[in-house]
Amino acid sequence: MKPIRIAVLGAGVVASGVVHVLQRNQQEIQRRAGRGLEVIAIAARNTAKAHEALGATGVATADDFEAAVRRPDVDIVVELIGGTDRARALVLAAIEAGKHVVTANKALLAVHGSEIFAAASAKGVMVGFEAAVAGGIPIIKALREGLTANRIEWIAGIINGTTNFILSEMRSKGLDFGTVLAEAQRLGYAEADPTFDIEGVDAAHKATIMSAIAFGVPVQFDKAHIEGITKLQAADIRYAEQLGYRIKLLGITRRRDEGIELRVHPTLVPAKRLIANVEGAMNAVVVQGDAVGTTLYYGKGAGSEPTASAVVADLVDITRLHTADPDHRVPHLAFQPDAMSDAPILPIEQVRTAFYLRLVVADETGVLSRITTILAERDISIDAVLQRESAEGERQTDLIILTHDTVEGRMRQALAQMQALPTVLAPIVALRKEELA
Amino acid sequence: MKPIRIAVLGAGVVASGVVHVLQRNQQEIQRRAGRGLEVIAIAARNTAKAHEALGATGVATADDFEAAVRRPDVDIVVELIGGTDRARALVLAAIEAGKHVVTANKALLAVHGSEIFAAASAKGVMVGFEAAVAGGIPIIKALREGLTANRIEWIAGIINGTTNFILSEMRSKGLDFGTVLAEAQRLGYAEADPTFDIEGVDAAHKATIMSAIAFGVPVQFDKAHIEGITKLQAADIRYAEQLGYRIKLLGITRRRDEGIELRVHPTLVPAKRLIANVEGAMNAVVVQGDAVGTTLYYGKGAGSEPTASAVVADLVDITRLHTADPDHRVPHLAFQPDAMSDAPILPIEQVRTAFYLRLVVADETGVLSRITTILAERDISIDAVLQRESAEGERQTDLIILTHDTVEGRMRQALAQMQALPTVLAPIVALRKEELA
Repeated sequence: MKPIRIAVLGAGVVASGVVHVLQRNQQEIQRRAGRGLEVIAIAARNTAKAHEALGATGVATADDFEAAVRRPDVDIVVELIGGTDRARALVLAAIEAGKHVVTANKALLAVHGSEIFAAASAKGVMVGFEAAVAGGIPIIKALREGLTANRIEWIAGIINGTTNFILSEMRSKGLDFGTVLAEAQRLGYAEADPTFDIEGVDAAHKATIMSAIAFGVPVQFDKAHIEGITKLQAADIRYAEQLGYRIKLLGITRRRDEGIELRVHPTLVPAKRLIANVEGAMNAVVVQGDAVGTTLYYGKGAGSEPTASAVVADLVDITRLHTADPDHRVPHLAFQPDAMSDAPILPIEQVRTAFYLRLVVADETGVLSRITTILAERDISIDAVLQRESAEGERQTDLIILTHDTVEGRMRQALAQMQALPTVLAPIVALRKEELA
Repeated sequence: MKPIRIAVLGAGVVASGVVHVLQRNQQEIQRRAGRGLEVIAIAARNTAKAHEALGATGVATADDFEAAVRRPDVDIVVELIGGTDRARALVLAAIEAGKHVVTANKALLAVHGSEIFAAASAKGVMVGFEAAVAGGIPIIKALREGLTANRIEWIAGIINGTTNFILSEMRSKGLDFGTVLAEAQRLGYAEADPTFDIEGVDAAHKATIMSAIAFGVPVQFDKAHIEGITKLQAADIRYAEQLGYRIKLLGITRRRDEGIELRVHPTLVPAKRLIANVEGAMNAVVVQGDAVGTTLYYGKGAGSEPTASAVVADLVDITRLHTADPDHRVPHLAFQPDAMSDAPILPIEQVRTAFYLRLVVADETGVLSRITTILAERDISIDAVLQRESAEGERQTDLIILTHDTVEGRMRQALAQMQALPTVLAPIVALRKEELA
């Protein structure tokens, strides 16, 4: 049988990984797929640089992206240029030309996914996106196919390696965010402009995609609540540890009766959970299903060959399924297009979590009583209290409170009221806490 | 579209889970599969007991298994009776009748897999077996589809919950094997006859299946090296801990130039690895691929609904794929039947691992030197030595040695030579050690 022919858009690290993995493991892959997979064209802005990145792979490069996606001899287009505007146009052009598409572009799918999947369905082609979430971990496949028996209850994932590396370093070395970020940039774990990572945007793209395929709702990145790790202080990592918790930047999506939670924020997680022990740039996703219970998927979330592993898995899936009746393929968003849910994404005020609070309070009688009264008045019950002399001196104290689950809107009112107390001497730190079991 | 019609053989806990999950999540599953899935017949030896187990599900039960597999209105037969003889006959009869088959029966596939898959391929039907390995964890799907880009290097898994529960209890409570086994039986974590679990046979069935789909070799259970946990002593768990290791019963399969390792045995694993922290009856499988690096999959490896989760995922896969050209389906053993490898399963003497040795030696000069000389003469290099006064008194000492990787045959010779020394006062304990990274 003739090999499946592939055009790759982009010639960065992931493109280079795809070309190298397909060449190195070509025999192994063909033994599985029953058919060869061959990259016949690479489109790159800078063809000289592309040649360098791709080494002696012998694949032709050109700078005409539009021509590459329309080549009549191409079966699958792999989009690896990133960004949302040109990538959207090229992916839609490829679909229009009847090509299957594989993409690692989470931003593109989190924002334009509904449009792209609708176009693909109309044209009877597939869009594979395993590489868009958690790199080499086959989490999209697990959610769309491995756990089809389940009503998914929630997903919580470490889905950004840069921030997990920074948090791991902050904890193990007791350092501040800024110091570790500089180190991460020096080591290549963080980009020169790390905004998308450290502000949680990248994790939110991925959480948005997982939310859609877990609950059968359209991708709605604009409804995600996003907080990064830039304001996190070493003191809170230390206090969390003393209370048996670690702080991780989690992408969380959860089904509630009223709708769906979709949020990214630093989160206290019990130290004994496996996900709390995922260190460095590694990724891990916990999925809770009603039949299967808790499952976890762990691996490298980024990098040339781990991401290529996911891209190539999609290429093999398409090779296997492209002759199948489109109605019998795995639906892009896990649920049949005519069976999607209209459950709303809940505003953050309606989200339910427990909280970690750190208040710097005057060291005088009655302070704790006033604070606990404010919480009690809003039906927020307290799980644990830790009081420590502040580093600043004797006249003030760090007061740490862990609460049970409550509604965020109620907590925000309580926080405003506590902050207004004259005995609360600094801005209150409030972090969300999840038991994840 | 008419629902897919299913006959279930067996009415135990997993069958009951399958029926309940399909009923409870019927809407969710249909929204994914695009078609209903309906159990129309259950075959059970004791129909009265079956009725009780299945509760008010309203599915007809009968005791004629042969009739159930041949019913013309059945599309898929789910085999959940266990054992290898009757199960083999029924599965082959179902295939012969043109039915797709889903089975949770690892013993059946580890022993008769090649015959069953060949019959299924000849008939153009699918045999799903996600539930046969690690229960609800979609590890078969990850290996056969999620990691197709990779040359798999090795797999190491906690794939028997009973033994992991026992080892967790032995470690956390410092108890002996016998005490914990009795407790596990009382709690229902171990069977009245626990031989298959504690002797490693169940884990070896699962490791055999994973080995076949990872490396494209036929299932060869008879070539697996199998050791259980019955001889494990509390002292070694304690010493391992002091050296930074935990002891887990692992199913391991690894590709070497000379062939494939396939083995189940208690194994020292660095305590900092995620898999070392998998406690209680949970399962976890680590897969090392050349492109993706290390990945890990964690969840419940047994139980009614976790196993049902895997069975139903297979049912949905078959629902999606049964109209597809058989040549384009996922091959049963991951590789195309005409592209299998004839790499041999290596005898245990050729396996390469590091070792943990505990020797009870006379407390006199020259003992350590004689022992290290024996190891050095066989090119076995030492990683660490720990010497502790034995509980037995002052005249003898526990000598713990960690070695670097060596060939098992060489170690066995060294062990025989050391055991013959008059200063070695008790049988030497030798356990294998894997770094798993």
